[in-house]
Amino acid sequence: MKKTIGVIGGMGPAATCDLMEKLVALTRASRDQEHLHVIADSNTAIPDRTAAILHGGADPTPELVKTARRLEAAGAEILIMPCNTAHFYYDAVAASVSVPVLHMPREAAAALKAAGVGCAGVLATDGAVQSGVYEKALSQAGVRAVYPSPPMQEQVMRLIYQGVKARSVPLGDIPVRDILRDLRDRGAEKFVLACTELPLAFSELGLLADCLDATRALALAAVRAAGGEPAAADPW
Amino acid sequence: MKKTIGVIGGMGPAATCDLMEKLVALTRASRDQEHLHVIADSNTAIPDRTAAILHGGADPTPELVKTARRLEAAGAEILIMPCNTAHFYYDAVAASVSVPVLHMPREAAAALKAAGVGCAGVLATDGAVQSGVYEKALSQAGVRAVYPSPPMQEQVMRLIYQGVKARSVPLGDIPVRDILRDLRDRGAEKFVLACTELPLAFSELGLLADCLDATRALALAAVRAAGGEPAAADPW
Repeated sequence: MKKTIGVIGGMGPAATCDLMEKLVALTRASRDQEHLHVIADSNTAIPDRTAAILHGGADPTPELVKTARRLEAAGAEILIMPCNTAHFYYDAVAASVSVPVLHMPREAAAALKAAGVGCAGVLATDGAVQSGVYEKALSQAGVRAVYPSPPMQEQVMRLIYQGVKARSVPLGDIPVRDILRDLRDRGAEKFVLACTELPLAFSELGLLADCLDATRALALAAVRAAGGEPAAADPW
Repeated sequence: MKKTIGVIGGMGPAATCDLMEKLVALTRASRDQEHLHVIADSNTAIPDRTAAILHGGADPTPELVKTARRLEAAGAEILIMPCNTAHFYYDAVAASVSVPVLHMPREAAAALKAAGVGCAGVLATDGAVQSGVYEKALSQAGVRAVYPSPPMQEQVMRLIYQGVKARSVPLGDIPVRDILRDLRDRGAEKFVLACTELPLAFSELGLLADCLDATRALALAAVRAAGGEPAAADPW
């Protein structure tokens, strides 16, 4: 019996659509009824995660928990949270429901490890970087993490917030190739797109080579956990 | 106060993602929290609509109603159904909940009328065509409807079922330009993509010119009904 996937979404809403598309693309199916049942709550009332972690912004926990419980009540049997930074609150979310919650940074770390990556360049929000959400998942998988230098990290934040979320800066105006070069200089063999807005930007820019898309890793793990037939062997 | 949109989805799941993306794209917002709250139930257990209308297949009504009620229970205040053919069951769905359900063919018809279109070529499933779902909405709006000739209608169905849903036939193998020429020959001034799989195919093929995308018309109507700030004046 296949399980219903619940998506704690809205962080941001475009990233939730991207995750949902990846669930569809990663399920082998020839008609609607062979796809998985997915309930997505794109709850845009969830406060900004980085603002909360680093700058005293409103705590996202109550809205995250409310969303998780709403999905469980609607019938979701597995939950996923397509926002890497939100995994800072993973324990509280997982404790609030009785269904399993997959862990995105751990899925990404497992995919890097399985590919034999010794050192990964992490592209993520300030909140995800400074809280150690990825550091911990990668180190548990035996993968070394490197991060952009401070001026390059500022550009990563600009890419996420102005480039994708607000669409106020053209993606081409952000020196993405310089960010990747900086990470390679620091030892990165591969990159992990550890913010769900980034696959949208990297796909548009044609820069997905050597990048592990954490959204795709999470989607593939969810298809497997729900009993769907995966359309790919790994998330690369 | 903005309203929560509920999406009766899964018909098919890729079309649900497309609708959700259009809700995001058609909302003017510079950060996550300015977007609308959307709960989507991609319920792939809903039986095939055309099979039910024309070929004695399982009745989709119970699953459609269950989905509508689940969304209402989860907090949805406006419902939309991104499947044109499913509007054959609109009255039963609308009667099953106490929140308003927008009507996709009527929204598409209103957009055609507003653009001064006198005669529209309807690209839809056999179920939507033969049940008169579009015929009725267009005639109420004073727009004349024309349909593909039988061999061309077979190609429309191939495009929907093999080209998009199953991805078993390359889109380029289907004579879409011939379908459009056939409709122009029958008097069509514009075309209405009256099956939610079609915008996916037409976008990939670069053939959206002169096409009203009913998914986009529904998304824009939903953004307005929910109190979001529309990012476009009309769905064209």
